[in-house]
Amino acid sequence: MKWWGWGDPGKVFPAERTPALWPWAKHRLGIDQEELIPPVARESIRLRRPRICAGLLEKLGAVLAADQISSDDEERLLHSYGKSYPDLLRVRRGEIPFPPDLVVFPKSHGEVEAIVRAVASLEVELIPFGGGTNIVGGINPGASERTIVTLSLRRMGRLLSLDAESGLATIEAGATGPEIEESLAERGFSLGHYPDSFEYSTLGGWIATRSAGMQSDAYGRIEDLLVSVKLVTAAGTIATRTVPASSAGPDLNRLVLGSEGTFGVITEATVRVHPVPPARDVRGYLLRSFEDGVAALHEIRRSSAVPNLMRLQDANETELIFVMKTPGGGLKALLHRLFGRCLRARGYKRPSLLIVGFEGTPADVQNRRKAVRPILRRHGALPLGQRAGESWSKEKYDIPYLRDFMMDYGCMVDVAETSCTWGRVLPLYYRAVAAGELQFKSNGLKGYVSCHISHTYPTGACLYFTYASRQIPGHEIDHYYGYKRLFTRLFLHNGAALTHHHAVGLEHLPWMEEEIAPAGLDALRAVKASLDPEGIFNPGKCLPPEPVRESDARERSREWRTPSSVPSPSPQPTR
Amino acid sequence: MKWWGWGDPGKVFPAERTPALWPWAKHRLGIDQEELIPPVARESIRLRRPRICAGLLEKLGAVLAADQISSDDEERLLHSYGKSYPDLLRVRRGEIPFPPDLVVFPKSHGEVEAIVRAVASLEVELIPFGGGTNIVGGINPGASERTIVTLSLRRMGRLLSLDAESGLATIEAGATGPEIEESLAERGFSLGHYPDSFEYSTLGGWIATRSAGMQSDAYGRIEDLLVSVKLVTAAGTIATRTVPASSAGPDLNRLVLGSEGTFGVITEATVRVHPVPPARDVRGYLLRSFEDGVAALHEIRRSSAVPNLMRLQDANETELIFVMKTPGGGLKALLHRLFGRCLRARGYKRPSLLIVGFEGTPADVQNRRKAVRPILRRHGALPLGQRAGESWSKEKYDIPYLRDFMMDYGCMVDVAETSCTWGRVLPLYYRAVAAGELQFKSNGLKGYVSCHISHTYPTGACLYFTYASRQIPGHEIDHYYGYKRLFTRLFLHNGAALTHHHAVGLEHLPWMEEEIAPAGLDALRAVKASLDPEGIFNPGKCLPPEPVRESDARERSREWRTPSSVPSPSPQPTR
Repeated sequence: MKWWGWGDPGKVFPAERTPALWPWAKHRLGIDQEELIPPVARESIRLRRPRICAGLLEKLGAVLAADQISSDDEERLLHSYGKSYPDLLRVRRGEIPFPPDLVVFPKSHGEVEAIVRAVASLEVELIPFGGGTNIVGGINPGASERTIVTLSLRRMGRLLSLDAESGLATIEAGATGPEIEESLAERGFSLGHYPDSFEYSTLGGWIATRSAGMQSDAYGRIEDLLVSVKLVTAAGTIATRTVPASSAGPDLNRLVLGSEGTFGVITEATVRVHPVPPARDVRGYLLRSFEDGVAALHEIRRSSAVPNLMRLQDANETELIFVMKTPGGGLKALLHRLFGRCLRARGYKRPSLLIVGFEGTPADVQNRRKAVRPILRRHGALPLGQRAGESWSKEKYDIPYLRDFMMDYGCMVDVAETSCTWGRVLPLYYRAVAAGELQFKSNGLKGYVSCHISHTYPTGACLYFTYASRQIPGHEIDHYYGYKRLFTRLFLHNGAALTHHHAVGLEHLPWMEEEIAPAGLDALRAVKASLDPEGIFNPGKCLPPEPVRESDARERSREWRTPSSVPSPSPQPTR
Repeated sequence: MKWWGWGDPGKVFPAERTPALWPWAKHRLGIDQEELIPPVARESIRLRRPRICAGLLEKLGAVLAADQISSDDEERLLHSYGKSYPDLLRVRRGEIPFPPDLVVFPKSHGEVEAIVRAVASLEVELIPFGGGTNIVGGINPGASERTIVTLSLRRMGRLLSLDAESGLATIEAGATGPEIEESLAERGFSLGHYPDSFEYSTLGGWIATRSAGMQSDAYGRIEDLLVSVKLVTAAGTIATRTVPASSAGPDLNRLVLGSEGTFGVITEATVRVHPVPPARDVRGYLLRSFEDGVAALHEIRRSSAVPNLMRLQDANETELIFVMKTPGGGLKALLHRLFGRCLRARGYKRPSLLIVGFEGTPADVQNRRKAVRPILRRHGALPLGQRAGESWSKEKYDIPYLRDFMMDYGCMVDVAETSCTWGRVLPLYYRAVAAGELQFKSNGLKGYVSCHISHTYPTGACLYFTYASRQIPGHEIDHYYGYKRLFTRLFLHNGAALTHHHAVGLEHLPWMEEEIAPAGLDALRAVKASLDPEGIFNPGKCLPPEPVRESDARERSREWRTPSSVPSPSPQPTR
């Protein structure tokens, strides 16, 4: 991973293949004079010296080899931030006030247990770290008097066992998406979990954040795929049992799912896998409007034949996708031909692009496609064919690189995602787009707000908004949080989820009490206090700091703190 | 409900329609001389006088009408036990040492909140009570110095709202299966949750125990159907949000699911519903063996066309079902005809009965049936047609009455259910049947052990054992617990679940620490202490009493106790 942005250090957004993009963006965002604002030079960054508490290196040295313990600046820099917009703003400027003091690389569940035991009596914080792709501040160290140790699972990526008969794989938590799929494919299996961060994010990170992938409509979210898990806590290891279903009290798997490293370290998990699907079919369609697309998705989702993948882009996002295509490229060329056939005249003036994908046996794919086709037709979906679908599939993992490209040009680009019931989808969509555009206008900016639907459920859908504008020099962070607050409050006021699959981290802390009620939050804090009485694990994330209480047992929790940049709850924007 | 047994007081097991049953049972269980052991006469039962702590009636009277508060013996008797075998043994003898002192009948979520607030400062225990069908002691009061108040949700059975577009119904927790289906059917919808206790059990009870129904393979367990829930706790109400999916921390719904009334009272829930399926198809098949049936289930489950219902009975259970049929009845007559066609000669000597059912649109039912048929054929399934399926469907809710009939004749009849991965299904089946039969033999008894598979998952299945023998006069309870321990330890030692859908209650307490690890148990105890600091709610259930600790905050929990009849963990039976 780059220290200053997304992905492979050797790879940047392929701007040369999308010559139309930047001119379009300049026009869309009202940028007259462009100015490059690159990240600071690596050499200019000086991290504070590692603060290593007494006894720590000796204790770690007793359980880890020398090459498993690093106080190297490169490692510390790489583990200082995730990939949220404020993370990148800061790291590109070289602002790294709270790097971890040490990064450790255990190689097994047993070593993680040994580390946790070793540091138990010391003044240490432990931050579990998977791929570092978190975009809500979930792995960021904060101000602390204690030694901050980031526990990277980079060297725990093995497929430990496969039960082909039951369709179960036990995998180390540090395995990335490609590592998982490659090791399973050798045995003829697939997990089928493809979040946008797939190339870098890890099984443990997915579990810790309740991740959803592109084919979760068919295979289920990570919480549906998880059968059992090992969590190393300060109070001992919890290894849930590998059984298909149970009614032995509340499901502990579900306490681990979404715990964001605050209860302990997820080291291994047993997940449902399926044979590598022999057939695959991904196609693009154009809908006359986002509304037509939503109606089609709703009807398909409530039929008995659900595709593996449905992604519906609104007109603004469709426009971006068209612009990103090179003139010679698949989709663009196709659309040129289609436009030539008087698309506009047939009502596709501001069309919505829909990608529909199937995976499975040839018969299963064919049956489901056959069931879905008449529904799509009824809603006016114009088939763009498989090339449009494959083109989308091929390029989907390039999108995160786009933000770095835009930030190079001084743009704010971020996303806000939520889920709501079907009846709320369009009202929420209209309100969020209108509120975003109004706020851009009131800030004197030309802004861009788009939306796609990335996941559907029988009961509703996930709405994923992208918004962009020029940065406001000198006020980049505040400017960003204005929009963060706007969208988040709008979601909550419209009966939508605080977050659908990005988790809480630091960014969503201010709304957690509203989201899960004071009693609910206290119950989770009680779990934290039980499993992590010293508050060692990923302090300050997921569960907002509790008000100071008289109880001595919770004295330590007073040390939890929210970095000052996290917004406090604010009233809904005036509209 | 009968005070002494299952179901409608006006209804008993229709023994006159099954003349072959008792002679067969006598032979099977080695009963030479039959003796009727009926329940004691109602008039002979004297409950202890209600113990009402000072201020309680005044406080309750301020929030409830007079007809919502009962210290009547009839109500107290009905709320003294669930329907487990030891419950029935005791109640039939008139042994009711711990009746509730008071039964209250709130009519709304608001009234439940008012009750909880009203009793907060008093020496009171609250036991939430749905249909009273629990068979693990989950609603039984125990020894206590405090006033025991059973909070019955009988008067909270309304459908509160229906969102047809999103397929969501909000229903009061006291609604029974028939109440739910009837009120939904009026609006064209169905929940599709059909546990064996369907006629009496309630939505709140299903949630509290993580229930599974006969069609859960298709519609999901209650935990999959639940979208949001209201839980009234001593620390305030937790109302989770009605969103399709979320990643805002660990899922609080899943803390409520399986909490068995120990965290608070479930008052309302929003659940996924679907349009009343216009088509339905239930058929019977005969397999040459249980093993063939398991292989068929495994293959079907891992195909893309899963039936709504698959129930596979082993040879012993199939024999019982055949015996229960009247000579003129559907299945028996059919089998007579089939036997006439030399069934035995074709290898169906000790056949396994498989019921396969579909619900949905006609096209969906037809498509899935078409996909499943060749798999069944490949495994030698002999079609018995729809009459066999319908006959089974019609009579399924009569089965619970059978236990009362057998108990009248001095027989022990109980069940033990679990789930395990596919690879473990047959080994566990063989071991459990062998161990059960061996234990009967070593007790000098002729016993009956049978098994059916009631639910399947991509990863495994639920095994549901039924066992019966003569009672041992004077040792009925100990005798029973010998088998309970035998099966439970065998499940745990063979990697199977402590319980698949019956929950923990009192009966499974001794194994909870082994099931979820000490740290996991402590985490749930911490939730309990946070939501119910005074230990008011359903004390002693689900979470085994914690060892006494020095912490003052948990002083109250020392009062939790397990009735002496609950078995303590014992070593695995010698085999």
